[in-house]
Amino acid sequence: MAMSVKNKEAVVLHSGGQDSTTCLAWALKKFDSVRLISFDYGQRHKTEIKAAQTIAKKLKLSHKTIKLPILKELTKNALTDKSVKVKAGKKGTLPTTFVDGRNALFLNIAAIYAKQHKIPNIVTGVCQTDYSGYPDCRNDFIKSMQKTLQLAMEFPFKIHTPLMFLTKAQTVALMDKLGGLELLKYTHTCYEGVSPACGKCPACKLRLKGFKEYGIDDLIYYR
Amino acid sequence: MAMSVKNKEAVVLHSGGQDSTTCLAWALKKFDSVRLISFDYGQRHKTEIKAAQTIAKKLKLSHKTIKLPILKELTKNALTDKSVKVKAGKKGTLPTTFVDGRNALFLNIAAIYAKQHKIPNIVTGVCQTDYSGYPDCRNDFIKSMQKTLQLAMEFPFKIHTPLMFLTKAQTVALMDKLGGLELLKYTHTCYEGVSPACGKCPACKLRLKGFKEYGIDDLIYYR
Repeated sequence: MAMSVKNKEAVVLHSGGQDSTTCLAWALKKFDSVRLISFDYGQRHKTEIKAAQTIAKKLKLSHKTIKLPILKELTKNALTDKSVKVKAGKKGTLPTTFVDGRNALFLNIAAIYAKQHKIPNIVTGVCQTDYSGYPDCRNDFIKSMQKTLQLAMEFPFKIHTPLMFLTKAQTVALMDKLGGLELLKYTHTCYEGVSPACGKCPACKLRLKGFKEYGIDDLIYYR
Repeated sequence: MAMSVKNKEAVVLHSGGQDSTTCLAWALKKFDSVRLISFDYGQRHKTEIKAAQTIAKKLKLSHKTIKLPILKELTKNALTDKSVKVKAGKKGTLPTTFVDGRNALFLNIAAIYAKQHKIPNIVTGVCQTDYSGYPDCRNDFIKSMQKTLQLAMEFPFKIHTPLMFLTKAQTVALMDKLGGLELLKYTHTCYEGVSPACGKCPACKLRLKGFKEYGIDDLIYYR
């Protein structure tokens, strides 16, 4: 007996940041119905989850926050441990903000959740172009992960990555084209978890650069 | 700066059952040092974790139990929900004891843990021969998972599956050859989580069949 598959529905991994909110706007055009999930993994910038909840509420979308204390328990990095400084990686080293296995774990859990709802489509905002040295943002990883999940659960998962080959400026352009710029007001990006944003951490810098290159002002406030 | 890799060490996924305990005995011969991890995911037969702890203590090995309530929260199956009956799958359907995404999630977390200790080797007792219809016990899945984890964390993970192509009788034979039969006294297999074991659930039946075919008595007690 084959399981029915809801091909017109999608689960969006929604951190509450700029990229995943752009993915959400993209998914709303592409699919009939969208569910959001966020992860509370003890991140330094936990306020992003509130941003995700605000956006879900505004759009009246189903939103689930999944608690995942295990990442903080197992790994040491600047995102889950305030004693580690946020630093970009130099050539050949990973940035201190890299959380080992994070995206694999998120996609794994998103897939388990999606299959319970018979949804094959999973949307995530990973991006190879401005990937900050995170190996689990690359297309090779995503393709391999998709195959692994299909094999693990015998289900036709498809991982969609609309931002994979875009620059940050092109991501802003995409959101503009989708008519979603207003939504970016509610997003949170700063690694320091502060609002107004610090403007200085690698995440803030990358965001600011994208808006600058696209030629419009960011919609959030900076210190 | 390349990260040092401890090629002579391994992490064994140890449920406390017969298969993973056989893998543990195998790993102790193959590697200089072994760490054990078990998962507490709200399984019906939670007593298997106690078995794992007993065995780790006997062998004086490092043992970590990882709490993973998320599986019970997200999936409905006979292992995490006592209202679902334990039933083998008929042709073309999955058994009610299949927990969607379980092995992928376990391997993912084991890999995160292993990398923190610079250990590339991960040993798991999955088996394609008597795989009970679980897609995440097949070799194709394991190969794909290994590649995915390598890509996700840029680390040379190797997933070892010494039981992959063995029958249950051959697994008993392997443990005999490794001189580990005594250890099986402390293992727990029964899905019903009872001791003495029920002898009737699919897990008990498979275990009993293996011992019978190999021609020795099982070392645990049955009702």
